[in-house]
Amino acid sequence: MPRHPLTVALLGFGTVGSSVARILVERPELTDRLRLTHVFNRGVARKRASWLTPDVVWTEDFDEVLAARPDVVVEVVGGVDPAREWVTRSLEQGASVVSANKMLLAAHAPELLIVAARRGVQLRFEAAVGGGVPLIHGVREGLSGDTLVGVAGILNGTCNYILSRMAAKGEPLDVVLSDAQRLGYAEADPSADVDGHDAAAKLVVLAGIAFHRHIKASDIPTKSIRQISSADFQYARRMACTIRQVSQARTRDSGFYASVGPVLVPQISAFGRNEGANNIVSIFGQYGGESSFSGAGAGGPATAVAVVSDLLALTTVGEAREAEQWRPGMVVAPAAMPYYLRFVVRDCPGIIATIAAALAKQDINLDALHQETGYPKDALPFVITVEPCEEAALSTALNEIGRAPWHAEPPLALPMLLDANS
Amino acid sequence: MPRHPLTVALLGFGTVGSSVARILVERPELTDRLRLTHVFNRGVARKRASWLTPDVVWTEDFDEVLAARPDVVVEVVGGVDPAREWVTRSLEQGASVVSANKMLLAAHAPELLIVAARRGVQLRFEAAVGGGVPLIHGVREGLSGDTLVGVAGILNGTCNYILSRMAAKGEPLDVVLSDAQRLGYAEADPSADVDGHDAAAKLVVLAGIAFHRHIKASDIPTKSIRQISSADFQYARRMACTIRQVSQARTRDSGFYASVGPVLVPQISAFGRNEGANNIVSIFGQYGGESSFSGAGAGGPATAVAVVSDLLALTTVGEAREAEQWRPGMVVAPAAMPYYLRFVVRDCPGIIATIAAALAKQDINLDALHQETGYPKDALPFVITVEPCEEAALSTALNEIGRAPWHAEPPLALPMLLDANS
Repeated sequence: MPRHPLTVALLGFGTVGSSVARILVERPELTDRLRLTHVFNRGVARKRASWLTPDVVWTEDFDEVLAARPDVVVEVVGGVDPAREWVTRSLEQGASVVSANKMLLAAHAPELLIVAARRGVQLRFEAAVGGGVPLIHGVREGLSGDTLVGVAGILNGTCNYILSRMAAKGEPLDVVLSDAQRLGYAEADPSADVDGHDAAAKLVVLAGIAFHRHIKASDIPTKSIRQISSADFQYARRMACTIRQVSQARTRDSGFYASVGPVLVPQISAFGRNEGANNIVSIFGQYGGESSFSGAGAGGPATAVAVVSDLLALTTVGEAREAEQWRPGMVVAPAAMPYYLRFVVRDCPGIIATIAAALAKQDINLDALHQETGYPKDALPFVITVEPCEEAALSTALNEIGRAPWHAEPPLALPMLLDANS
Repeated sequence: MPRHPLTVALLGFGTVGSSVARILVERPELTDRLRLTHVFNRGVARKRASWLTPDVVWTEDFDEVLAARPDVVVEVVGGVDPAREWVTRSLEQGASVVSANKMLLAAHAPELLIVAARRGVQLRFEAAVGGGVPLIHGVREGLSGDTLVGVAGILNGTCNYILSRMAAKGEPLDVVLSDAQRLGYAEADPSADVDGHDAAAKLVVLAGIAFHRHIKASDIPTKSIRQISSADFQYARRMACTIRQVSQARTRDSGFYASVGPVLVPQISAFGRNEGANNIVSIFGQYGGESSFSGAGAGGPATAVAVVSDLLALTTVGEAREAEQWRPGMVVAPAAMPYYLRFVVRDCPGIIATIAAALAKQDINLDALHQETGYPKDALPFVITVEPCEEAALSTALNEIGRAPWHAEPPLALPMLLDANS
C-alpha cells in the first residue's frame, strides 16, 4: 500500500499543469491523499503562482525533482524528448508517472510500461486521449470483461471544429483555419492536427488500451483534411451526410485495420452530430456491442480532471498483479467499404465513360452519380459513390483515372461510414 | 493481494448469470484469474448447463455456497429479499460481492458498503446501472478528479423503446406497450418500468457513485409515462422536440434536486436521438463540463460484460485505503424550469383566460400557445409552454386550473430540457 499523502512533482506548468495544481488547491478533501511538492518548468521564475502554498518548490532543475524522491511525477510537458528521459528516470527511480503526453506514449509506451512493471510502479495516462473524457478508465477497467474488436472516434478537436464550421457555414477550409488560429483553436503550424498525426498518436494509445497491442503510428495511413472543399459538404449533405476526421482501429485477421482521415458519416449519427472541439469515441465489443464516450477533448481544466483522477487512482489502488504489456500489432488492409469519389474536372465528353471503365476493370460497382449546378465548366466538381470495395482495387482504379488529362484537381476518395450507430 | 485464480460463486443462472458463465468459459485467458466453482439457483436441476466444466458445483442450498468460502460471490438474482441476506452474509464472511441488483443497492448500499469496508472486501456493481455501459468505472475512477454537480440519463430501456416507437410511428402507448410485452421488452406488470421505479433505483445508485450520497428512492419524485399520448409527440415535434423518460439528480443548495419522468428534449440532442432500448448518461463536473456514456442498457451478454469487468477488477486491485461511504443525501426542490403544459378540454369560451389568470397569479409567464387541428371538440388537446418557473408555483396554478369544469383529461406538465447539450 502506498503511504499517504502521496507526494507529487509536476513537470510543466502550462495550461494543463496549472489546472492540475488549481484542482489540488481548490479541493481541500484531496489534501490528505495528494501533496504537491515540486513544480518544474523552464524559466520557472515567470511561472510562479502566488495561489500555491509557499512550501511548493519551484525549480528548473530536473535532478532536484528526482532527488526529492516524489511518489508520483506528473508529466504534462508534451513532445517525445526530453520527456522520454524524464519519465524513464522517474519510473526507474520507483516513482509512478501520470502523463498526458500522447506523442511520448505512442512512440514509447511498450518499453515505458515494462520499466514501470519491473519497478512495481504505475504509468497512467487518462489525459493522453480524449482530454477529460474518462475513456481509458472506461475501456481498461469498465470493459475488461469483453473481448474488444474495434475502436473508432473523433480524437482531434481542432479538425472537428474546422469541419463542423465548414459544414455549418459553407466557408472554405483556409478561412476557417486562419480564424481557428486567431482564436487559439489551431497552432501556427496546423499540420499535426489537420494532417492527422495528433489523432494517429491518440489512436495508438487507445488501441494499446483496448487491444494490448502497439500499433506504430507510422504504420497508420493518415489522410489530411486539407483536401476537403465546401463542395464536398454540399455533396455530403445531399446524401444526408457530413464529413468528420475519424480515427479507427479494428481487429482483422491477425492484425488491425487502422486509419485516420476524413470520412462521410450520416448527419444524424453521433459522429455527425459531434460539434466544435468535442471528442467522441465508440468501442465495439464481442459481447457488449457498442459503447460510446463523449465530452471535452481538450482544455486545461477538463484535461486536468483526467490527470487528478489518475493521481487519485494511485492513492487507492494496490499493485496490479498482471502488469499491462502492449505486444506489437500489425496493420493490415481494411475490409471492403463504400467510398465517396469526388472529381473536379475541365468538362469534356467521355469523362464518365473513362471513370466507369476504370472502376469496372477492378470489379467496383457504381452506386450513384451526383452533380450540383452552379460551378464553372473548367473546375466542375461531381461525385460518384461506389459500393463496398477493397481499398487496393480502388487505388488501382483511381491511379488509372488520375492519368486522364481533364482533372482540374486530383480526385478525392473518402470512406463512407454508414452502417455503424456512431 | 488476493490469491489467484479467485474462486467465484454465481447466485442466479438466468439471462445475466448464464452469460457471465459463458464469458468465463469462452475467454480462456481469464482462467488463471477467475474460476467458477458454484452455481446457485432455485430448481437448479433444470438449469444445469452441459457447456460448463463438470467440477462446477450446482446447488440450491446457499449454505453450501458459503461453506466453500468463495473469494467472490456474484449476485444476479434481483429483488431486495432474500438477496440482501445472501449479500450481507457473503460480505460478513469475507467474500467480495459483485451485484447487478439495483433494487437491493438503492435500498441498502450504504450499510452493505460499511459491512464490506469493515471486512476489507469489495462490493462492486457496474452492472446495476446502464447494463454494459461502463459508467460506474468511468464516474467513480475516471472522473474522481472532478467535483461532480449533476447526473442525467435515460436509464430505462423499456420506456425508451416505448417512447421512441410512439415518436416514430404515432402509435398510442397501450398498443406499443402490449407489443413490447409480447416481444419480451416489457414485463407482464410494466409498472416498475413505465412508472419510473426501476429508473429511480438506478438513479440512486448513480448518484451514490457520483456524489457519495444516498438519496432515498422514495424521496425521488417519479412521474409515469402512461399519461403521454400521441398528441404530445405531435406537439413536441412542432417544437423540434421529442419525449424521453429522463432521470436526473443535481446538487442544489445543501441537497439534490432529483426526478424521474417524461420530459421534452430537443430531437437533435443526444437524449432525443437515443433510440430503442439504449441507455445514455451525462455527467456534469465543475472542471470538466459534460461527459457522456452510452450503449446497451440491458441484455444478458452486455450486462455480463459489466459483471466480468468487476470480477477482473477484483483480481488486479489491492485494498482501497478509503472505503466508499454514501452519507444521506437530501432531496430539495428543483431549479426553475420551462414547462410544457398539455390540456385536453371540452371546448367552450373562456378556457385560455382561466389558465392565463391562474398562471399570472403565480407570476408564471406564458411562452407560446400551440393548437393542432383535427381533434374533436369534446376532447380537444392544446399546449401552453411557459417560461422557467418554480415547480411549486406551477403546481399551485395547475391545482387551481384543474378545478375548472371543462377538462376532458387531467392537465399534463412536462419539464423541458432545452439548454443542455444532452
